[in-house]
Amino acid sequence: MAHIPTATVSRLVTYLRILTDLEEADVKRTSSDLLAEEAQVSAFQVRKDLAYFGRFGTRGAGYSVPTLRRELRRILGLTRPWNVAIMGMGRLGQALADYPNFDQYDFILKASFDSDPAKVGRHIGGVDVYAVEELDARVAERNIDIAFLTVPASAAQEAADRLAAAGVRGILNFAPTVITVPEGSFVEPVDFVAGLKRLAYYLQGPGERAKVGS
Amino acid sequence: MAHIPTATVSRLVTYLRILTDLEEADVKRTSSDLLAEEAQVSAFQVRKDLAYFGRFGTRGAGYSVPTLRRELRRILGLTRPWNVAIMGMGRLGQALADYPNFDQYDFILKASFDSDPAKVGRHIGGVDVYAVEELDARVAERNIDIAFLTVPASAAQEAADRLAAAGVRGILNFAPTVITVPEGSFVEPVDFVAGLKRLAYYLQGPGERAKVGS
Repeated sequence: MAHIPTATVSRLVTYLRILTDLEEADVKRTSSDLLAEEAQVSAFQVRKDLAYFGRFGTRGAGYSVPTLRRELRRILGLTRPWNVAIMGMGRLGQALADYPNFDQYDFILKASFDSDPAKVGRHIGGVDVYAVEELDARVAERNIDIAFLTVPASAAQEAADRLAAAGVRGILNFAPTVITVPEGSFVEPVDFVAGLKRLAYYLQGPGERAKVGS
Repeated sequence: MAHIPTATVSRLVTYLRILTDLEEADVKRTSSDLLAEEAQVSAFQVRKDLAYFGRFGTRGAGYSVPTLRRELRRILGLTRPWNVAIMGMGRLGQALADYPNFDQYDFILKASFDSDPAKVGRHIGGVDVYAVEELDARVAERNIDIAFLTVPASAAQEAADRLAAAGVRGILNFAPTVITVPEGSFVEPVDFVAGLKRLAYYLQGPGERAKVGS
């Protein structure tokens, strides 16, 4: 199939969130115009993104919300559960172990790892803590697909290398540094500083905000 | 000035990150084509986003990296410091207090708040913890612009209301729920579940991935 731009994948995730909201509001049909408005892109972009995967709507009649939502879940790989581990059970790792909403998205927390012997063997936030030395065995045993990387920045690349070597192909990187992963593996950074910068833009008074052509 | 779409603001943040990387690599000039490729959008989109704010490049000659980076920092309101507080010093709040990279972005951690008397009066991760009852006074005293909302989902809306009443106009929402803020205030959700869903897409084997027209 055609190469799918990463920005298209990001927008599909956004369209799915919008469709889920519509379904919860009991809305049955939608359009590329409405999806475009909610997602802050053009209607042409919505149609182009969806066209990579087939024909979902009828010109003039729009889309069935439940059908398009189901198709997007299938396209995004969200019709099966994904097994997750937490690498680094410091404060952030423990906070994520407590995060209540994973199961509803079919991301199942299966294990966690830490290098601190005082944590190993404990059960924190509903998940067993294992030694990093057990990574290969536990990843295989529990079919871990994705790891939350919550170690300090200085330890992040080495931890990512160990995860990849153990067969974990997806990393959600919370460490404040860029990491690289081998071909066939994938990393998604969690960049809340980008959210802070957007806030800074909006918080400027109209007087402070950059003028056109200034 | 013209209304700026929120998606444009998000892309400006992305362009700024790319320009910072280019500057660190000592690259002096760039183009809308290169920015577009790195940001995964069209070159037309890059030019359109920048055109809201004036003329920055020369047709055929592209952009000066340091000039465009400086202009984007100005447009985004990043040429002044922003004072930040953490609302909720549970594990996530404490993890954020330890986050090493705020100052380099001119976001300055000034205070934190918690309802737990055992935490109030302590100094955690380099920041003072105050009682929520002190919110109004401390926000005024320390000129807090932005709060990290790190309370449980069930307490998030009430905490957001108190922050808005105290004069905090920007909220970075880590609580796994949607909150609303009054006109003139702004909220940015930190949605790492979106990153998880993108990973799920990429982790599907080519055989599992949805076929065109299937």
